[in-house]
Amino acid sequence: MENIKVVLWGMGSMGSGMGKYLVDKKGIEIVGGIAHRESKAGKDVAEFFGLDKEIGVKVTNDPMSVITEDVDVVLQATSSFVEDVYPQIEKIVKKKVNVISIAEEMAYPSVQAEELSKKIDELAKEYGVSVLGTGINPGFVLDLMIIALSGACAKVDKIEAARINDLSPFGPTVMRTQGVGTTVEEFEKGIKDETIVGHIGFLESINMIADRLGIELDKIEQTREPIVSETHRETEHVKVEPGMVAGCRHIAKGYSDGKEVILLEHPQQIHPGKEGTETGDYINIKGTPDINMSIQPEIPGGIGTMAVAINMIPVIVDAQPGLVTMKDLPVPAAMIGDARKLME
Amino acid sequence: MENIKVVLWGMGSMGSGMGKYLVDKKGIEIVGGIAHRESKAGKDVAEFFGLDKEIGVKVTNDPMSVITEDVDVVLQATSSFVEDVYPQIEKIVKKKVNVISIAEEMAYPSVQAEELSKKIDELAKEYGVSVLGTGINPGFVLDLMIIALSGACAKVDKIEAARINDLSPFGPTVMRTQGVGTTVEEFEKGIKDETIVGHIGFLESINMIADRLGIELDKIEQTREPIVSETHRETEHVKVEPGMVAGCRHIAKGYSDGKEVILLEHPQQIHPGKEGTETGDYINIKGTPDINMSIQPEIPGGIGTMAVAINMIPVIVDAQPGLVTMKDLPVPAAMIGDARKLME
Repeated sequence: MENIKVVLWGMGSMGSGMGKYLVDKKGIEIVGGIAHRESKAGKDVAEFFGLDKEIGVKVTNDPMSVITEDVDVVLQATSSFVEDVYPQIEKIVKKKVNVISIAEEMAYPSVQAEELSKKIDELAKEYGVSVLGTGINPGFVLDLMIIALSGACAKVDKIEAARINDLSPFGPTVMRTQGVGTTVEEFEKGIKDETIVGHIGFLESINMIADRLGIELDKIEQTREPIVSETHRETEHVKVEPGMVAGCRHIAKGYSDGKEVILLEHPQQIHPGKEGTETGDYINIKGTPDINMSIQPEIPGGIGTMAVAINMIPVIVDAQPGLVTMKDLPVPAAMIGDARKLME
Repeated sequence: MENIKVVLWGMGSMGSGMGKYLVDKKGIEIVGGIAHRESKAGKDVAEFFGLDKEIGVKVTNDPMSVITEDVDVVLQATSSFVEDVYPQIEKIVKKKVNVISIAEEMAYPSVQAEELSKKIDELAKEYGVSVLGTGINPGFVLDLMIIALSGACAKVDKIEAARINDLSPFGPTVMRTQGVGTTVEEFEKGIKDETIVGHIGFLESINMIADRLGIELDKIEQTREPIVSETHRETEHVKVEPGMVAGCRHIAKGYSDGKEVILLEHPQQIHPGKEGTETGDYINIKGTPDINMSIQPEIPGGIGTMAVAINMIPVIVDAQPGLVTMKDLPVPAAMIGDARKLME
């Protein structure tokens, strides 16, 4: 049996993080690493994973030199948006290679890009491969887990879920896009001019849940509010004084028949513990029966996304051709044994 | 689009409970109800569901009078054991009808009945239908949920999970098979002569997890110990004085390379709250990252099993032919909308 051959497209922290966990997985072989910047090319990919070894595969700037018909899966970690990743996906699919993308919008791409989604689906079917968007959120905590738990309910009246995390480990880009360290005025301005974006994924998660459960949505409302700090909070990259903004409380509500039926909250801030807020993933379903789930602390975002994506490799290799989503596929599972045998 | 036509085989509390929730589901039509006892035949099935209406379908003692090639799914609730349900499954499959069974052993039938499982798989493929065993446990809490959560881990060292429930609502059969109300001596004797059985499903759950994650098991060990009460506990059906047995602490351990890698606990007793034990479903994965999940209180057993089983109807109709398990299929989801459109 041949190894599952994987190419990493995108060698930033997520791409090389996935590579690091994949390099020793039995049944999987990394056959390419694609970086955007020329300065990265030529080094052994294992160096990029932070490992003290070489595996004989050099980072390249030329995607199509490594994406050949021999490859089984491309792990795409290049952008958050369907529009940006589409041209890459088109090229990969035309080589008859499956795609797992961690672009947030790809978790349910029809929401933001209906036409491109149709094109991906048609192309994937034509070339006999599957294209999946996934990650910890969207892709797992606030959609797949909600769907799965609802599966133990005979009736569902309302879904409330929250992912409360700590942004402290993240770098300057995250601080900027979540408004950490701004004044309330700067925050409001940032929301208006879209430099502060909050979470990317609520529309994808709510639509995935609604479609799978058969909820007909009237509308989805989103609010993004500043989390104003009452204490001094500080990380390597940002300082927040009392009265300043420690993060963004992003809330999305899905309505059906005029009633709020799905409420998702994702307050993202640095050092929530400073004001007594415990991090965690929480899902409460009101129905028959009620289900109250908590994961404390929350499943960490970075490693969680890497894990979900790499763990879908055996699933995507086995999947029906087309554009697929997490609700359509068997669940991911940690790969302890030989990846080639996990979906037998 | 035609309704999904469902027959209930088994009209006890589980069978008629599933019927009660299905009767008003859009896109689903109950076309038969099969009871073993002659005294039950002739009544409208809706009466059996405890509903104050008739749907024009009478309970029958003659299975093959209602299981025709027009039927899409038979919900089987007749026994816990593969050997008992196999003859029924064979008849159903030969009519080209899918099967969802709540027989605990059917959740992973190759464990207890390898030959019969092969036969089911071959037959199902020959007739182009799917056969699934499911329920809340085995089938969901201590296997599918563990598998799914491990999907957010890049590495897994150990899995520990517990389902702590309250047997108080159950009837005399459950009291007897869990040893509730016995003396410690009677309990030990009951374990030896197999009149006290504890939980049925650990072998199924552990093997499902191990196979999906690729854990090579050396052995599985099970222990069943009496939960000796320190207080007076009482239900409609049983009295437990201090020193007597309030239930059965059933534990299963899976070993790999000599190390305990999977630990599942299912202490089942009446009124655990009397001695401060909170009911709940708990999953702790030691790995990268650690994941600590709790559902409090536990997902109730009866309604949970009914819900998981009925919610798999749209999935099984859409599944690949053969004997399938929960790890191979998309997750169940509550059916709020038209059941025919949920897997589109």
